[in-house]
Amino acid sequence: MTGKVIALSGGVGGAKLALGLSKILAPDELTIIANTGDDFEHLGLHISPDIDTLIYTLASLANPAQGWGLKDESWHFMEALKAADGETWFQLGDKDLVTHVLRTKAMREGKTLTEITYDLCLRYGVSHKILPMSDDPVRTRVITAEGPLDFQHYFVRERCAPKTTGFEFTGIKEAELNPAIEQALTDTDLSAIIICPSNPFVSVDPILMTGNMRALIKASGAPVIAISPIVGGQALKGPAAKMMQELGLPTNVSGIADHYEGLIDGLIIDETDRASLQALQARPFKVLVTNTIMNSLEDRIALAAATLSFAKSVQSSV
Amino acid sequence: MTGKVIALSGGVGGAKLALGLSKILAPDELTIIANTGDDFEHLGLHISPDIDTLIYTLASLANPAQGWGLKDESWHFMEALKAADGETWFQLGDKDLVTHVLRTKAMREGKTLTEITYDLCLRYGVSHKILPMSDDPVRTRVITAEGPLDFQHYFVRERCAPKTTGFEFTGIKEAELNPAIEQALTDTDLSAIIICPSNPFVSVDPILMTGNMRALIKASGAPVIAISPIVGGQALKGPAAKMMQELGLPTNVSGIADHYEGLIDGLIIDETDRASLQALQARPFKVLVTNTIMNSLEDRIALAAATLSFAKSVQSSV
Repeated sequence: MTGKVIALSGGVGGAKLALGLSKILAPDELTIIANTGDDFEHLGLHISPDIDTLIYTLASLANPAQGWGLKDESWHFMEALKAADGETWFQLGDKDLVTHVLRTKAMREGKTLTEITYDLCLRYGVSHKILPMSDDPVRTRVITAEGPLDFQHYFVRERCAPKTTGFEFTGIKEAELNPAIEQALTDTDLSAIIICPSNPFVSVDPILMTGNMRALIKASGAPVIAISPIVGGQALKGPAAKMMQELGLPTNVSGIADHYEGLIDGLIIDETDRASLQALQARPFKVLVTNTIMNSLEDRIALAAATLSFAKSVQSSV
Repeated sequence: MTGKVIALSGGVGGAKLALGLSKILAPDELTIIANTGDDFEHLGLHISPDIDTLIYTLASLANPAQGWGLKDESWHFMEALKAADGETWFQLGDKDLVTHVLRTKAMREGKTLTEITYDLCLRYGVSHKILPMSDDPVRTRVITAEGPLDFQHYFVRERCAPKTTGFEFTGIKEAELNPAIEQALTDTDLSAIIICPSNPFVSVDPILMTGNMRALIKASGAPVIAISPIVGGQALKGPAAKMMQELGLPTNVSGIADHYEGLIDGLIIDETDRASLQALQARPFKVLVTNTIMNSLEDRIALAAATLSFAKSVQSSV
């Protein structure tokens, strides 16, 4: 790969591809932009779930089974919190707490989330750049039949049970795009912008809606490649498919194509969805069919390599 | 016992006697006043060591071996903090963290330390009243040959090694005495004020120096009984004896008598120091010799009972 790459990512699925990219690209060749719409304050601690998942994944510290948190985690804090009649709907591991405590302390001291994320990356030995989409607070709320819910309340406390009717992103209009992102998007060496297989509504959209992000992506001239988070009509992780269904959207790769049309130059879909290829070829972007299910590290690296190569081919044909 | 009792306490030694008192006195008969000069902010968390020791001790959750923290504690947070290059000189157990997280959250929300302490007591099942000496911040600093040190830096990080030349209590002049303490001290049912066997300089003095505490004690007319924290020339716990020596004070019960003379109506010394009884009888207060070493719960209750009974005898002879 020649040139620099930007990846937009939410949590688990996005982080898997980000890890694959980090195994191919040098630290100065990859910038990962993290959604912060999932951030929230819990027990007085500032928690950034997507940033944490990215850091833990890139540091090879992530729990492979549950898809969030740290491996070899323990739960004595939670046991004591329960005994003390505390709020226990959000699980905070004993080791994971370190991240939240250090971040919260630094925020109280006036550090930006960008500075704090950089510091955490150093502490956990992550050398690739992870940038929060903004240093200003944006809070995703899922509008449901039962009223609007803060994202973590919807996602964790209510286990995505309420029916989704829409989304709102508190603070998004006032939020300034992270200046380091603008810098990365205007870098003349930029060769690809990758939209990881994350939830389009609550992971990728908040990033795209921050400041002049969309305009900067367009202006960059770099090929924009999305990897469908929907495989065989299902989301591999999380509520993306359920949300699409509840919003009356096609719960398949066509729905993803609809969502990103006008923004992307290429869409990667899974072998499972090869039957959709023909219909997608009418769309104003190229389509690559490959294995997008990332069970192993090799899968992550293979998809990352396929994505970079696809971006190159899309670029040369533009 | 008829009437109400106030106990002034620091950490470990004081908490042992407070526990004994709590086994004899009903919740509405005992008010424990806790030193908050040891409080500090660490990793962004508000920590109140003496209050925590009192709560944990009264809840029978204290670690009996180390004299601070919780029993059955685990240290995964600390291990992860160390791995993340965090500050590890102050030990925070996984379960103990619950207390600091809940307190810090409540302080950020504008709750007073009194309200927070009451809430924590409820959570841990402590029904006797523990009152911080003030809701305003007071910070003890130990003046040493190497310069002034924040108390926990002196006590924990430097393990009391620097030579003490004096003390300062930042904020003490501005700190308002907890109004609930004034209420307890003006209660017409008040029958005894007990100065627990805590460090006179850094545990008891900050309480006595807060607002009009001394004047209210005097005005209450209740007998004031101190239990010597020095036994056989040694402090059972902590740096009291070392401090007395470094300050050029007699490192024995006479030094304690000097310190409290003018304030107390009775001093309780250990059997070990029976030889000092005769000299002490010239002092303007009564002296009781009994076992003050509290190894078992029975010891704590016995000393509490002896203290209450001594207070009664001192009262009737006043």
